[in-house]
Amino acid sequence: MNRLAAIIGGGVIGGGWAARFLLMGWDVNLYDPDPDALRKMNEVLSNARRSLPALYEHKLPKEGQLNHVATLAAAVKDADWIGESIPERLDLKQKVLGEIQSHCRSDAIVASSTSGFKPSELQEKSAAPEQIIVAHPFNPVYLCPLAELVGNAETIKKAQAILSDIGMYPLHIRKEIDAHIADRLLEAVWREGLWLIKDDIATTKELDDAIIYGFGLRWAQMGLFETYRIAGGEAGMAHFIEQFGPCLKWPWTKLMDVPDLTDDLVQKIASQSDAQSGHHSIRELERIRDDNLVGILRSLKGRDWAAGALLNTQDKTLANDEVDLSKPLKTVNRVIPVDWTDYNGHMNEARYGQVFSDAADKVMEMIGADAEYIQAGHSYFTAETTIKYLDECHAGDGVYVTSQILLGEGKKLRLYHQMFHDDGRLLATGNQFLLHVSLKTRASCPPVGVVAKSLPRFAQAHAKLPNPLEG
Amino acid sequence: MNRLAAIIGGGVIGGGWAARFLLMGWDVNLYDPDPDALRKMNEVLSNARRSLPALYEHKLPKEGQLNHVATLAAAVKDADWIGESIPERLDLKQKVLGEIQSHCRSDAIVASSTSGFKPSELQEKSAAPEQIIVAHPFNPVYLCPLAELVGNAETIKKAQAILSDIGMYPLHIRKEIDAHIADRLLEAVWREGLWLIKDDIATTKELDDAIIYGFGLRWAQMGLFETYRIAGGEAGMAHFIEQFGPCLKWPWTKLMDVPDLTDDLVQKIASQSDAQSGHHSIRELERIRDDNLVGILRSLKGRDWAAGALLNTQDKTLANDEVDLSKPLKTVNRVIPVDWTDYNGHMNEARYGQVFSDAADKVMEMIGADAEYIQAGHSYFTAETTIKYLDECHAGDGVYVTSQILLGEGKKLRLYHQMFHDDGRLLATGNQFLLHVSLKTRASCPPVGVVAKSLPRFAQAHAKLPNPLEG
Repeated sequence: MNRLAAIIGGGVIGGGWAARFLLMGWDVNLYDPDPDALRKMNEVLSNARRSLPALYEHKLPKEGQLNHVATLAAAVKDADWIGESIPERLDLKQKVLGEIQSHCRSDAIVASSTSGFKPSELQEKSAAPEQIIVAHPFNPVYLCPLAELVGNAETIKKAQAILSDIGMYPLHIRKEIDAHIADRLLEAVWREGLWLIKDDIATTKELDDAIIYGFGLRWAQMGLFETYRIAGGEAGMAHFIEQFGPCLKWPWTKLMDVPDLTDDLVQKIASQSDAQSGHHSIRELERIRDDNLVGILRSLKGRDWAAGALLNTQDKTLANDEVDLSKPLKTVNRVIPVDWTDYNGHMNEARYGQVFSDAADKVMEMIGADAEYIQAGHSYFTAETTIKYLDECHAGDGVYVTSQILLGEGKKLRLYHQMFHDDGRLLATGNQFLLHVSLKTRASCPPVGVVAKSLPRFAQAHAKLPNPLEG
Repeated sequence: MNRLAAIIGGGVIGGGWAARFLLMGWDVNLYDPDPDALRKMNEVLSNARRSLPALYEHKLPKEGQLNHVATLAAAVKDADWIGESIPERLDLKQKVLGEIQSHCRSDAIVASSTSGFKPSELQEKSAAPEQIIVAHPFNPVYLCPLAELVGNAETIKKAQAILSDIGMYPLHIRKEIDAHIADRLLEAVWREGLWLIKDDIATTKELDDAIIYGFGLRWAQMGLFETYRIAGGEAGMAHFIEQFGPCLKWPWTKLMDVPDLTDDLVQKIASQSDAQSGHHSIRELERIRDDNLVGILRSLKGRDWAAGALLNTQDKTLANDEVDLSKPLKTVNRVIPVDWTDYNGHMNEARYGQVFSDAADKVMEMIGADAEYIQAGHSYFTAETTIKYLDECHAGDGVYVTSQILLGEGKKLRLYHQMFHDDGRLLATGNQFLLHVSLKTRASCPPVGVVAKSLPRFAQAHAKLPNPLEG
């Protein structure tokens, strides 16, 4: 049976939580008295469906069931995780948290998405305060991995396991503080930005340009301190601070009052923002943002770094390692990411080759030519591939590959891959001839060790299957 | 003749400027009295050589000549661009700028990399103040496109043309202000981060985690204001500010004094940074950072957004559009980016397919099946490809492809691609059979318009060339 999350409040944040839980195979009870709640939820869910699965090289678990329930009591009763994402008013939050606790299981986690309040404030009127923690996520919740966790250490340990399971990066903030960590940093930038706009130094677009063409690129992969560590060079971080620390006494740091949000300033920002982004609807901007995030996250996966390393770890848990030699091997089972499509709107031909290359990697792994074997000095190189393109597929489509060993003798390995759409259509075939090589000499040679033993067994079993090239 | 930049001061910033100019085909005179200057410069240059060319789908111009010159006067005499990147001391900068102006051409641009000083301060003792501007770049200068330009509007217009030419995003800051724009935002985060460390709320790693798993991902592609515009939803930016604006009056914004950089605090930060990143040398971190940036920037290219759109624009200027029908067409001429290599250390087999797919796109463009033609409803789909892998290539290698039309009759198009390493080795061949299709019916059909006219001409000319399959 699926695990169950109750999401109380289905706005952008609550909806994002719900979407992430659903796509990771949890059932979700949504409670939100807003008559429009289900429509809003489905909008977020449709954004999530087109982006989150594209982050992985394996299919996600079967999507869970979304239940729009009529009462808070019914929503939380059986839930393992209860997420509160209602408006940012302390009295309201305390009231709803009280209601939740009077109906939920005592071992459930009650997590507030609050961006400002401390756990101790949320817990003020609670008889079981340790059950209530802060789990503060970042928009879009279905793509951004960060969740700041604040509160009871035992509860947080359980929460971390759940959030890791749904692909997040649960960061334990050990001391409670207004606005936790990330929003304090953001608030500092926001405050400085408001001054620069108010004083006509820069527009919203110029400020955004200063971010996206400059330090924003750096911060997708290394934070403030690691970046500055590099800037400091071999002399190290203390040297860097000595060198740049005095800046904090420079005149521009004096400007630290809070600008008054007069109607004039609000209008100024709003009209600058219209000029900057008004040619895109919010829905368009969301999709542009999500596609960009998928691309950035996938590029970090390729480098196995930061949020990309997190995704790689989770990908391993999604792999199917069942080997059934009585039929072609199931070697790939995935969703087509948007960055694999081209100007024709369908998956680019080169990515068919990538899918078959991944399929060959999986066969290699199954016969024992895995990372360790390669590390020890042997591998397979492809000598020739013929791909027949039979049908189109598009971003978001589920596909799988079956791979048959047509020849596995000495240094020779011939694989025949068939790529299917989940709807049953055969999309392409790949006929791939590989040679076993020594990575030292870069020349071909017979397999060694475990591969020398298992390849004949695989080849003999598959020799009994019908030959797809004859027939 | 190449254009000439003089770089005064060859540290991380000056070296980064020099590397970008050189790789974009400018000659560079480097002046730096440090006896170690050339070694340091070559270290930066070697980082730049392995990353910057990988951002483009075409080869960059031939690298310019680096001259390490003995005097400032000789360095600046003939230069079109003079970049000053000496230490951040106003008296020193004024002195060196004076020296520069007494030896340089009156139409040269004199640009200071200062992160703090205003142009009016730099110009204080100058007889030709309008010649001196601020051009403040971001590390690594050879990858980060942002340069903040402050000063005389006419000079800045000329500077923008030059910086765009070398692939940067020259942002004109219209009002001078201490620390320009981006460093004010950065300084605000730095200040808040210091407080959080001092008060033991978070370590350097936790702060960096809060960035790279959260808002850092967002800021690589949309800045603060565009991100918040989305958060505000259809109600718009004014609504967002009304909703979140009150946060600026919340308690955490009171914490705006400047923390004292006591020895204790410096040591605390330095040792936290060691714990976080000390297992990598600075050199390693630089390369990790550069590879990550290449991946992120390339993913943004795929979405044609932000810094990626900038790269696409420049890529178009690098394309070779010469068509010589007396020999196979030169269709690809590029460098292998690091994200195209696999666990075997060489270019992944699927990327050979991508290179040949790009080659086919170029042939299509040459015969008139370009973006406009596709937009109008026709294209070519690949039906079958056979790739023979003959030799390996690695990240940073220059490669090119020649493409011959073996058949161009009615809806049928057969291309034969040969991919060469710049050292002359034949790396792979691709035999590719394409069908002309209607994008409406998704079925094959004969070409129309310009393609119907030009394809026979191309095919007849190439029919006179030796057939590579009979030989």
